[in-house]
Amino acid sequence: MNSDYRGRFITFEGGEGVGKSTQAIELRKFLEGRDIDVVLTREPGGSPGAEDIRHLLVTGGTDKWQPMTETLLHYAARAEHLQATILPALKRGAWVICDRYADSTLAYQGYGQGQDIEKILELHKLVTGDFWPDLTLLLDGGVKLGLNRARHREDLEDRSTREDRYERMGEEFHQTLRKSFLDIAKKNPDRIVVIEAEGGIDSVAARIAKTVTQRLLGE
Amino acid sequence: MNSDYRGRFITFEGGEGVGKSTQAIELRKFLEGRDIDVVLTREPGGSPGAEDIRHLLVTGGTDKWQPMTETLLHYAARAEHLQATILPALKRGAWVICDRYADSTLAYQGYGQGQDIEKILELHKLVTGDFWPDLTLLLDGGVKLGLNRARHREDLEDRSTREDRYERMGEEFHQTLRKSFLDIAKKNPDRIVVIEAEGGIDSVAARIAKTVTQRLLGE
Repeated sequence: MNSDYRGRFITFEGGEGVGKSTQAIELRKFLEGRDIDVVLTREPGGSPGAEDIRHLLVTGGTDKWQPMTETLLHYAARAEHLQATILPALKRGAWVICDRYADSTLAYQGYGQGQDIEKILELHKLVTGDFWPDLTLLLDGGVKLGLNRARHREDLEDRSTREDRYERMGEEFHQTLRKSFLDIAKKNPDRIVVIEAEGGIDSVAARIAKTVTQRLLGE
Repeated sequence: MNSDYRGRFITFEGGEGVGKSTQAIELRKFLEGRDIDVVLTREPGGSPGAEDIRHLLVTGGTDKWQPMTETLLHYAARAEHLQATILPALKRGAWVICDRYADSTLAYQGYGQGQDIEKILELHKLVTGDFWPDLTLLLDGGVKLGLNRARHREDLEDRSTREDRYERMGEEFHQTLRKSFLDIAKKNPDRIVVIEAEGGIDSVAARIAKTVTQRLLGE
């Protein structure tokens, strides 16, 4: 728990197309139904400046950045997002739901692209003062299905602004990601709960609501 | 000295419009006259990806970033620039002349914008492995004259792409910068040489050539 803040900070993590955005909206509905003030946001991005940095990360060639550069760009966006959006909301007592946070940097840039994990953790401490979520929901599901879902979504978008750089990193990369997230969850059992992402939206949402109720609503 | 590399790494530092770019070109001419292979580059930027990050830093509102975000963006660009341009050149034995490097981050983001200096130095170590120039030439001159020179240069450019974000930070900010650079020089007497920037281009170039000859050519 981040005891300096009155609100609670919940993140969704997992691979591409696994349903994070959909479930984040479902969770917002659930919490608002209990009269909780909710801010729903995402990374990279979530504040005007951070969205400009996002553009550098999610478009263009898959090998356009050195892993260290890419890690620093994610932390530049995160520093901005924390100060501009997340921390002010938590201070006033709102609950913040964020689609991706630092575990994605560990999985994608660390396990996936080979950036030294210890350096990422050191950077996290330097930039955020070691600020982690109260609860992280790791949506775990099949890679093929997820990539297909993500690609279908992209097909509906304008090609020139398509945010598919990470999706284009190949199936092997995404298989590595899935294992990485599970490994990170294993190392952080107090904070991260693995949620089975297969099945209908409602049944996944029900699992998440149950977890949040037990972990953060004290019921 | 960075003994892993055959080439030498020389940086120019100082406030706006003090003549860094002009003197960097003069120094290249001087070194090439001695049959030295020279790569002339600049920060933020100096490689394709790093130039994209530069754009976020040198255009737009003066208060568009939190100091930590701005520091991280400079280091993202620096990480890319080091790996893509500076280190490969030094390895093959070229001398690299760079218009601005890490001392500018210390002066602008640290002393100028209030980012904790120790955190910047920690980040420098984390990202670069504590890689510093063999020689830094600090051009020191009057702030008013420098800002006027810089503004005249900008007047010749297209308003929409004008790279004047730092120049617009006000005279007080630039007076602070001048003192900051001199303070950094005082703390690093083995690496940094203060060069009086007033006077004609040729007389400043002669002072620089003399310093480089004494310090790096062993004559």
